[in-house]
Amino acid sequence: MRVNYEKWRLQKKHFWLRIWEDYEIGYLDRDLIPVLVMLNRDRDIYTTSSCSGRIVVVDGNVPWIRGETSVVFKSHIPITTSDLFFIYEKPPHRVYWLIVTGPIIHFSTTSFRKAVEILKRARSMGFKHSGIMHVSSSRGVFVELVTGVYITQLLRIKDKYTLTHEYLNHVLLVFNKALIEGKLRLQKLYEELQKYLPENPDSWIEEEINKRDVKLIKQKPIEIFYDMCRDVCRNLINF
Amino acid sequence: MRVNYEKWRLQKKHFWLRIWEDYEIGYLDRDLIPVLVMLNRDRDIYTTSSCSGRIVVVDGNVPWIRGETSVVFKSHIPITTSDLFFIYEKPPHRVYWLIVTGPIIHFSTTSFRKAVEILKRARSMGFKHSGIMHVSSSRGVFVELVTGVYITQLLRIKDKYTLTHEYLNHVLLVFNKALIEGKLRLQKLYEELQKYLPENPDSWIEEEINKRDVKLIKQKPIEIFYDMCRDVCRNLINF
Repeated sequence: MRVNYEKWRLQKKHFWLRIWEDYEIGYLDRDLIPVLVMLNRDRDIYTTSSCSGRIVVVDGNVPWIRGETSVVFKSHIPITTSDLFFIYEKPPHRVYWLIVTGPIIHFSTTSFRKAVEILKRARSMGFKHSGIMHVSSSRGVFVELVTGVYITQLLRIKDKYTLTHEYLNHVLLVFNKALIEGKLRLQKLYEELQKYLPENPDSWIEEEINKRDVKLIKQKPIEIFYDMCRDVCRNLINF
Repeated sequence: MRVNYEKWRLQKKHFWLRIWEDYEIGYLDRDLIPVLVMLNRDRDIYTTSSCSGRIVVVDGNVPWIRGETSVVFKSHIPITTSDLFFIYEKPPHRVYWLIVTGPIIHFSTTSFRKAVEILKRARSMGFKHSGIMHVSSSRGVFVELVTGVYITQLLRIKDKYTLTHEYLNHVLLVFNKALIEGKLRLQKLYEELQKYLPENPDSWIEEEINKRDVKLIKQKPIEIFYDMCRDVCRNLINF
């Protein structure tokens, strides 16, 4: 398979500029920025929609059908029972599910060899369900890096069967710890891939980085995360 | 990358014979047999450890760490609250988690093109998290076909915080439906891949199949599943 490199470069520029649009409107997970920048600094890689790990509440019969499921709460830092008081006040249309997911990174590369090398390194850092999702001449080799950090909990069914406050409190301890476990794996992935990337520097991206001068680029993912959650995290990590 | 074909053939024979060893000791998911046979009938494919979808209870701090987590209950068919009475009688060492997982198929192929073609077809049948996991000259292109059907529920923390019977009953309705959703996707995968496989018949496997004359080979996965669960399923599918 041969990638149409010119077309692929246009996609890279498009997705790179979108990172900064998302950043400016506050839509981007800030602790993801060092990882996205590191990957994009390689000439043969661009990233697409990714996530640093989060806790959400969705309303749906099952947690995985996107069309019928709506996100009613979202947080990239640990949460407390008071964040979820709404589940007692307003019944769901279907079922309230609490979900914690670890980090998920998507990228495209023009090099199959590079995809396999990154997969190997990512797996050794706890991204055990990672794989090449598809391959095409227009989109290149498309990779998903993903951990097994994923828990759901059925919180409430319509106007009945709600978890008690006390039970919820204990569920959140477990979910918050899982969120942090995901953030720690993201940090490990960052450190591991930094040994390898950029293999072939991308001069356009370097110019872009210098122009933007965003402080977060120089920080580690875990530093940014701690900064995002401050006291909430300090208590949990010593827990 | 070039696969060491002779070595790879030895692996194929080894894994094929293991299917039938597992079958004889009752360790194999019976509704998986038609899918495993279909894949292995192609000269360039062999399957490794796979699962048709199941409900388990594990005891562990989190549901994904295998070393510290022990499986205390397992079923490949829908379950009732009476199957789980033990959670009220005996507290867990850590946490009891109820988990339902959809089907997961692992296979190795010597053909990268074939891996990509199967991935494309599997994704269209609801195996949306499938991918090429690794690639090597000794083990070939290693693929995981997996759906997003995955739910967990924290059932009990040590000697406190247990779900009520009534709540558990409703949780099981949702989990049983998810299990069946997984079985239906397995059937769809089977039908879709049957249009394509075997692309290159494997004469050794054909001889083997004739020799074994196992009735299940000629059945559909969903027929075997219905046969496995009988009345339990009939009620649930009309639910």
